[in-house]
Amino acid sequence: MSYRIGSGIDFHQFAEGRELWIGGIKIPHHKGALGHSDADVLLHAVCDALLGALSLGDIGVHFPNTDERYKNIDSKILLKESMDLVSGKGYKVVNIDSTLCLQEPKIKKYVPAMQEVIAKVLNITTEDVSIKATTTEEMGAIGREEGLMAMATVLLQKI
Amino acid sequence: MSYRIGSGIDFHQFAEGRELWIGGIKIPHHKGALGHSDADVLLHAVCDALLGALSLGDIGVHFPNTDERYKNIDSKILLKESMDLVSGKGYKVVNIDSTLCLQEPKIKKYVPAMQEVIAKVLNITTEDVSIKATTTEEMGAIGREEGLMAMATVLLQKI
Amino acid sequence: MSYRIGSGIDFHQFAEGRELWIGGIKIPHHKGALGHSDADVLLHAVCDALLGALSLGDIGVHFPNTDERYKNIDSKILLKESMDLVSGKGYKVVNIDSTLCLQEPKIKKYVPAMQEVIAKVLNITTEDVSIKATTTEEMGAIGREEGLMAMATVLLQKI
Ligand SMILES: [Zn+2]
Ligand SMILES: [Zn+2]
Ligand SMILES: [Zn+2]
Repeated sequence: MSYRIGSGIDFHQFAEGRELWIGGIKIPHHKGALGHSDADVLLHAVCDALLGALSLGDIGVHFPNTDERYKNIDSKILLKESMDLVSGKGYKVVNIDSTLCLQEPKIKKYVPAMQEVIAKVLNITTEDVSIKATTTEEMGAIGREEGLMAMATVLLQKI
Repeated sequence: MSYRIGSGIDFHQFAEGRELWIGGIKIPHHKGALGHSDADVLLHAVCDALLGALSLGDIGVHFPNTDERYKNIDSKILLKESMDLVSGKGYKVVNIDSTLCLQEPKIKKYVPAMQEVIAKVLNITTEDVSIKATTTEEMGAIGREEGLMAMATVLLQKI
Repeated sequence: MSYRIGSGIDFHQFAEGRELWIGGIKIPHHKGALGHSDADVLLHAVCDALLGALSLGDIGVHFPNTDERYKNIDSKILLKESMDLVSGKGYKVVNIDSTLCLQEPKIKKYVPAMQEVIAKVLNITTEDVSIKATTTEEMGAIGREEGLMAMATVLLQKI
């Protein structure tokens, strides 16, 4: 019954001419997220929480944005690799809670699909993957729609 | 001895002519917090952490800011409803830790009263409700006193 | 097997003519962190997470920045005092996960030394101290290199 805690935070700018991937789902929007990979802010925050719970380094250490292998990569692959590291250490995910901070677009209707994606990769049920959303009430860079942020917290348990 | 983890974050703008409610306490200040409800940033972050720990959706899903029922509502009612959902799932709160980010006013002297409010609604002792505060060192929107932010982390246990 | 959760966040401005201490390590950089103490943003976030997990108040309550005793103080001393309070309550640290948000400098190569410092003070192994880093993708005050931020999450267990 041995537990570990992890937390992650990630940021991406919005940019014209990019796709907007959040939680493994492509979301229709006039701007996308800028990054070396597919710039999936939610999956990156979850990766960092998983890695952090076992002190395995961070997403930048494992998947450097200077590495051509990760150019435009589907972040579900990074999530799978992060989860494999967790499993390899003998741990499973108890639950994940996360929050997206963005002014636009509204993501509520995409949440069940995101939960499915993440639950499948982490080998848990959708009830163990919480995805919440909030705006910053138009304050700061995120309020000006310059970009978006995601935070994730994870509880692991030794198998 | 089954545990779950939750986390929440909330933002509100400051505005003239509004009351400033934080942690269920009305705080004297020349500006208040703007929002559809009483805009209690701390109680909202705690609600989101409670809901998120059991993947019950977020505060915007349960108490939409387009719903007239929640206009200027006392957020203690929202906290009670969130806790009822947690209890209904067979869980209790082990402890809550939270941080308020705001430049002004100083909230230290109001913390014991806030702890009393939250502990009572969640049916725990004040020792299980931590409320911390920090400034952003005058940086960003919060540093310019455009608004305030609260973060909360919660540990639940199956009864 | 009784657990408690804690979380902390801290901010400091960058300033010319100051040293940059992060995680108990002095990092070469053309700017340092401004503050009453040595302004170690990571150690302060960890202190707040430790104190918050047991509802012991925050770093500003224990080590006020108006107190001459804490002027330019080594934050390792504050971390030690925070840990002593945790031990005094009969708890130990299971693990810590943390994230530094800063645009520059890159801190990756200093992480092992930071882990050593924190692990030693908290009487845990370096595998129980995770330190991650991310930029804000040049957004906001931190993106403009006005300052830096650290977040920490901690899991405690009753001895
Ligand atoms: Zn990312
Ligand atoms: Zn709110
Ligand atoms: Zn500090």
